[in-house]
Amino acid sequence: MINYDTFFSTAARGSQGSAIRRMGVMALRVPDMISFAPGYPDPEVFAWDDFQGIAAEVLSGADPSVLQYGPTRGYRPLLEAVRAILASRGVEVAEENLLITTGSQQGVDLLARALLDPGDIALVELPAYTGAISAFRNTQALLAGVRQEPDGIDLGDLEAVVARHRAAGRRVRCLYVVPNFQNPTGLLLSREKRLQLLDLAGRLDLLIIEDDPYGALYFEDSAGPADTRPIKADDREGRVIYLSSFSKTLAPGFRVAWLVAPVPVIEKLDLAKQVSDLMTPALDQRIVYEVCRRGILDRRIPGLRRHYQHKRTAMQQALQASLGGLVTWPEPRGGFFLWVSLPPALSADDLLPRAVEQRVIYVAGSAFFVDGSGANRLRLSFSLPPVPRIVDGIGRLAHLIREALERRG
Amino acid sequence: MINYDTFFSTAARGSQGSAIRRMGVMALRVPDMISFAPGYPDPEVFAWDDFQGIAAEVLSGADPSVLQYGPTRGYRPLLEAVRAILASRGVEVAEENLLITTGSQQGVDLLARALLDPGDIALVELPAYTGAISAFRNTQALLAGVRQEPDGIDLGDLEAVVARHRAAGRRVRCLYVVPNFQNPTGLLLSREKRLQLLDLAGRLDLLIIEDDPYGALYFEDSAGPADTRPIKADDREGRVIYLSSFSKTLAPGFRVAWLVAPVPVIEKLDLAKQVSDLMTPALDQRIVYEVCRRGILDRRIPGLRRHYQHKRTAMQQALQASLGGLVTWPEPRGGFFLWVSLPPALSADDLLPRAVEQRVIYVAGSAFFVDGSGANRLRLSFSLPPVPRIVDGIGRLAHLIREALERRG
Repeated sequence: MINYDTFFSTAARGSQGSAIRRMGVMALRVPDMISFAPGYPDPEVFAWDDFQGIAAEVLSGADPSVLQYGPTRGYRPLLEAVRAILASRGVEVAEENLLITTGSQQGVDLLARALLDPGDIALVELPAYTGAISAFRNTQALLAGVRQEPDGIDLGDLEAVVARHRAAGRRVRCLYVVPNFQNPTGLLLSREKRLQLLDLAGRLDLLIIEDDPYGALYFEDSAGPADTRPIKADDREGRVIYLSSFSKTLAPGFRVAWLVAPVPVIEKLDLAKQVSDLMTPALDQRIVYEVCRRGILDRRIPGLRRHYQHKRTAMQQALQASLGGLVTWPEPRGGFFLWVSLPPALSADDLLPRAVEQRVIYVAGSAFFVDGSGANRLRLSFSLPPVPRIVDGIGRLAHLIREALERRG
Repeated sequence: MINYDTFFSTAARGSQGSAIRRMGVMALRVPDMISFAPGYPDPEVFAWDDFQGIAAEVLSGADPSVLQYGPTRGYRPLLEAVRAILASRGVEVAEENLLITTGSQQGVDLLARALLDPGDIALVELPAYTGAISAFRNTQALLAGVRQEPDGIDLGDLEAVVARHRAAGRRVRCLYVVPNFQNPTGLLLSREKRLQLLDLAGRLDLLIIEDDPYGALYFEDSAGPADTRPIKADDREGRVIYLSSFSKTLAPGFRVAWLVAPVPVIEKLDLAKQVSDLMTPALDQRIVYEVCRRGILDRRIPGLRRHYQHKRTAMQQALQASLGGLVTWPEPRGGFFLWVSLPPALSADDLLPRAVEQRVIYVAGSAFFVDGSGANRLRLSFSLPPVPRIVDGIGRLAHLIREALERRG
């Protein structure tokens, strides 16, 4: 029998699975499981009829490029459609600053490979999206966490962390942030701090990787376009690389996302993408483009905001009713996630096997912390389950949390 | 102005574009260009009506998973369909040995990242597919070329190259080969050599990466299933990682391909794919699955073989008529490529600007050689242009080759 370990690269030997993906797989296998684990959008609000009609049209054969190899940068009309979306968010860029990616995960992965050498420091928030953590770890970069406050990243801590690692002789070149309804905390970076962060990045000579999958999905009872304005919109210097996606507003099954960066960075990412997958699937790009061109996306987004706001409210009410006073969370003003702090004595990791028995799952918070903390946190996604299931699931969760507290006496 | 060079990783600073992709882009810009450059399949023989009907069905909304996040390994029914395709090629594997990839380019890239550290040796044929060369280079591995003979890789040279690099203290762990109608040479590795290569890989303790995009497209006038039987079919030891794709038989716009490997390797690749793009697009996988399930792929392949054989024959006849005696090539017994040797005095790179003026392009052979050789070779793809355009294009090529020879006196 061959020992394959001797064949693996250093990166492969060190690679680890994603807790979120594991939870997703587990959820599929247990009957009647209520899953608050993966951040899946709700297929109930996908534009099925539009997709169906558009797919039939573009697959008529009249345009052979729909199923042919195409440019790595992306389908040009889609690039133009993305420019219009960006302009509506205050981000004015040229087509040469754009790259279509096979989901934003690919964008983060390409950036990790283009920017990080083994031993470099990649800065992430505490906590941070696990897909970004994995992409950075894969390059054998070291991860350094920066604390968050209720209005987003702690700028004083950022400065201190950078200074500490540079004093130790390490290269610190980029910071990954999710300013809008962060994954996993749901936090919104305040407007003042966005400008301060941009200024600080200039002084510290850092690139900011601004990942924005959820910005369009603000909840109108508590946030608006001015609150979600990308940092990139005020970037005069070319410090910010901005990523966004159609996965949460149209459907993740298309795997169509995009990335905005200065031309020298785009050129490197284009080469890296050629090696990764040559291009994002042509049919998916074409369908997404037609959805934009026909105004379908614009028309649907207000309804999506209401839909997810309604679920957020249902989850908050259920939590308040069943666990009020025992657990806390910052109110999500958009996005898919509610970030719960358990009583300090409880560990979300330890509770998980019992939760699976009770047929409810979440992602334990520790997965999102690069400094080993977060044991009493958990991430609940309210985006996918229907409201009655949200209420049931929170009931199950409340039961096991109370049970665990009683056992501890 | 920010100097982005200081932000790039070592790999990004060293990255280079693909000559084939550049040619593809150039071909799109010049009116009346006849392109023999990229190896594009012919959309005239895509199953447009079937794709259209299937897309409309699967997008009915009845099954929400069609546009949802799904497992990284791939859509399970598609994995089963791939197992059946593999069995028809003599390769018997379990589902746990399979991974769906976003095109075979992703499979090669994942393998490069999982198997190679900076400074390791990656073995490729002389010449070899540029997409694989780029993927290996990106890991900062060093490339070592192994000579080919008319019946494929030179096993004596393989043994010598491995010995030389190991004597120099370098790690040599994998060999990339395209046994069926190789890109760029069109060569078919003989049946005897396949078994000898497998045996030699065992003795040298190498993994074989067997890339097989073209195996199903043999030309029935000169090859058959026994000639294209994968090396993997006779691999008892777990030495061979096998890749194949739907890009050449269905359409490249779907970006659906697959990879077969021992379980420990699949597990590492699964993790690497999670980081790369989470999953291959769900809609694309679903359409491809339905095409397989309904027998559409099986029914169409004989026609594809005849279609591309006919184009191959047209190109050969045109070359023979216009350049017989001046250029030579091995007769392609399948696939998309015809590999031309120019008179030794001519350089395919030097001829290229004049070819573009004459509105005909090809890929200069030097792009495929990791040892700097191949100046008088060029790759002609006969797969895409209609026969009259093939004849015209070869006429233009003959004109400029004769012109160049006359100028040299």
